[in-house]
Amino acid sequence: MKDDRARLLLSLNVEPGDPRLASALREQGGAAALLDAVRRRPAMWPEPWQHVTDGPEDQVEHMLRVGREQGLRWITPGHEEWPEQLAGLDEVETAGGAGGAPLGLWCRGTGHLRLLSEHAVAVVGARDCTTYGAEVAGDIAASAAASGFTVVSGAAFGIDASAHRGGLAAGDAGIAVLACGADLDYPRAHASLLGRIAEYGVVVSEYPPGRAAARSRFLARNRLIAALADGLVVVEAAHRSGSLNTLQWADRLGRTTMAVPGPVTSAQSQGTHDAVRSGKAVLVGSGADVVAELVGFHGRIAKDRAVDVDPVATAVFGQLHDASPRQPAEIARELRIGTLHTVRALRRLEADGAVEATAEGWQRTATSSPAP
Amino acid sequence: MKDDRARLLLSLNVEPGDPRLASALREQGGAAALLDAVRRRPAMWPEPWQHVTDGPEDQVEHMLRVGREQGLRWITPGHEEWPEQLAGLDEVETAGGAGGAPLGLWCRGTGHLRLLSEHAVAVVGARDCTTYGAEVAGDIAASAAASGFTVVSGAAFGIDASAHRGGLAAGDAGIAVLACGADLDYPRAHASLLGRIAEYGVVVSEYPPGRAAARSRFLARNRLIAALADGLVVVEAAHRSGSLNTLQWADRLGRTTMAVPGPVTSAQSQGTHDAVRSGKAVLVGSGADVVAELVGFHGRIAKDRAVDVDPVATAVFGQLHDASPRQPAEIARELRIGTLHTVRALRRLEADGAVEATAEGWQRTATSSPAP
Repeated sequence: MKDDRARLLLSLNVEPGDPRLASALREQGGAAALLDAVRRRPAMWPEPWQHVTDGPEDQVEHMLRVGREQGLRWITPGHEEWPEQLAGLDEVETAGGAGGAPLGLWCRGTGHLRLLSEHAVAVVGARDCTTYGAEVAGDIAASAAASGFTVVSGAAFGIDASAHRGGLAAGDAGIAVLACGADLDYPRAHASLLGRIAEYGVVVSEYPPGRAAARSRFLARNRLIAALADGLVVVEAAHRSGSLNTLQWADRLGRTTMAVPGPVTSAQSQGTHDAVRSGKAVLVGSGADVVAELVGFHGRIAKDRAVDVDPVATAVFGQLHDASPRQPAEIARELRIGTLHTVRALRRLEADGAVEATAEGWQRTATSSPAP
Repeated sequence: MKDDRARLLLSLNVEPGDPRLASALREQGGAAALLDAVRRRPAMWPEPWQHVTDGPEDQVEHMLRVGREQGLRWITPGHEEWPEQLAGLDEVETAGGAGGAPLGLWCRGTGHLRLLSEHAVAVVGARDCTTYGAEVAGDIAASAAASGFTVVSGAAFGIDASAHRGGLAAGDAGIAVLACGADLDYPRAHASLLGRIAEYGVVVSEYPPGRAAARSRFLARNRLIAALADGLVVVEAAHRSGSLNTLQWADRLGRTTMAVPGPVTSAQSQGTHDAVRSGKAVLVGSGADVVAELVGFHGRIAKDRAVDVDPVATAVFGQLHDASPRQPAEIARELRIGTLHTVRALRRLEADGAVEATAEGWQRTATSSPAP
């Protein structure tokens, strides 16, 4: 059985995010080998894992068909769209009953997950946020999006939704990571928000289509939000809020961890203040602060001339392969990265002298090297 | 001329806080020697210093009489009431045209400056503060006062006044440091506030009676606020606010530096957020946080049994010298430390088994050692 199908079969029978999975995969040397090992000596493995032997090919075919019908695609490590940074999850301690890189991801939406998460910031926080928190989350997301960062969040009520909306309003494609099947609109009231994200971005889940959300899955989901982004901003969080769990994942993964302060009289800011006090997060007061932290820490995003280290710009440049000029929207469709990211990449390439705008569209300059 | 009179004469002719003073005192080996040096070769010294030769004894006598008439006392290093921690100012870099330990201090009020500043916290901030800031300053000051810390501030409008009022309401004696003569009510509208502080605490200034406030004197005054206290809390401060100057003094002096966050949308919290972001201050959200930082950092104030290192408790214990029990108010009057501090010291001594409460008042226990 091929690796991507073996991973899918495992994900149907083993709880995705189970920290024993990652180590079993490593020990057995891959998904197919792990399947074989379970089949050979089922009693050696946790009870639910043993069902992996029940009509494996049927299960895989069925789920792939269900996924297709729901507009989902299944991607695994090695896939062109797979975000390499998820591998970091295999390098850090497990926690709260979850850990390890996901077996694979179900994706819904036109966005290209790897390219969109190249420059990404997670913005998360309390479900029962204050008006202040909602406004700040929206502003920070919009400002980060305008600086070329994709907003990653969990589509929950409160801060998550405000962050997604702020990003979308600024032209962001968006990435939503769910704790249930990527085909489900959860929470129900956010069906149209998830639809808007799927339009140019991606709704992502490690759970099979139709799988319901559960408390433990929210905790497991948090590690994916943290892992997908370069940094994480907690906008509001009560003492011991779930967002602080996401912050811990980001911290373990070596991501830039940030927290927004608020009135000390607000219960919804206690968690962010605790995080700053304990040194687990840097205080940020604006989108500009967030961008400065991300750029400063990673040094990955040079202000103007980052073409040589920027896979998005490289991909956009690759689309301008012949003499005929092209429109940003056309390139965006092709690359599945949204028009905003495309235009920003074109501007960076232009500043670098690699491309130029003409009346008919964008084209390579005469002097541009074949691969900038 | 005796040292305290020589210092007074110098303070009348040299701008107190002039950073050249401290080094001149060190070089010449004391105030009297510096006076002699100026008299011998006046041209070697800054022009205003040369007036030190004009009828010195008359000047000193006149000013001491004026001070007495205004209810002020002049204290200098070596005086029983002199706060030793001011010497730290001689060890740190000068800044903003000010520096060095003060020549002496004019004190108004019944409080004992050294004992009151043994456990003290400075609470400062914006003059044009928000309602939020005023409330938080009052709460933090009240809570720190209730934990036995004297509140030190500048009696200015806004945060300063709220901090003083919060402390007084919780039974604090209070220390106000002015940028003008300690006899002057500055600002005018705070005459009754200053009167209340003088009732059990101290209004302090390094400027002679009658000397008017000036911009440079506020900056020089800030170093005394920082030096007198164990730690400093900035509650609200706009970008580049004067309170950040006080914070820098506290930082230079190795005091615990703290800042209160607020809404990131509030201009009055930009300065405190900047201070936290840059690592110049620890974020604190409550009086409990402040006390925890002060206790944790200095380790000077053990929770219950700090009698052996606590000069306030030692002084209170010293007042219970014979068999007849005494009332806290009586001891407070004698020691000039306010009833709150006295009762708290008695409680600490009680926890230590050194004193006990009887129907007639407090007395030493039979088993208590002569000097706990």
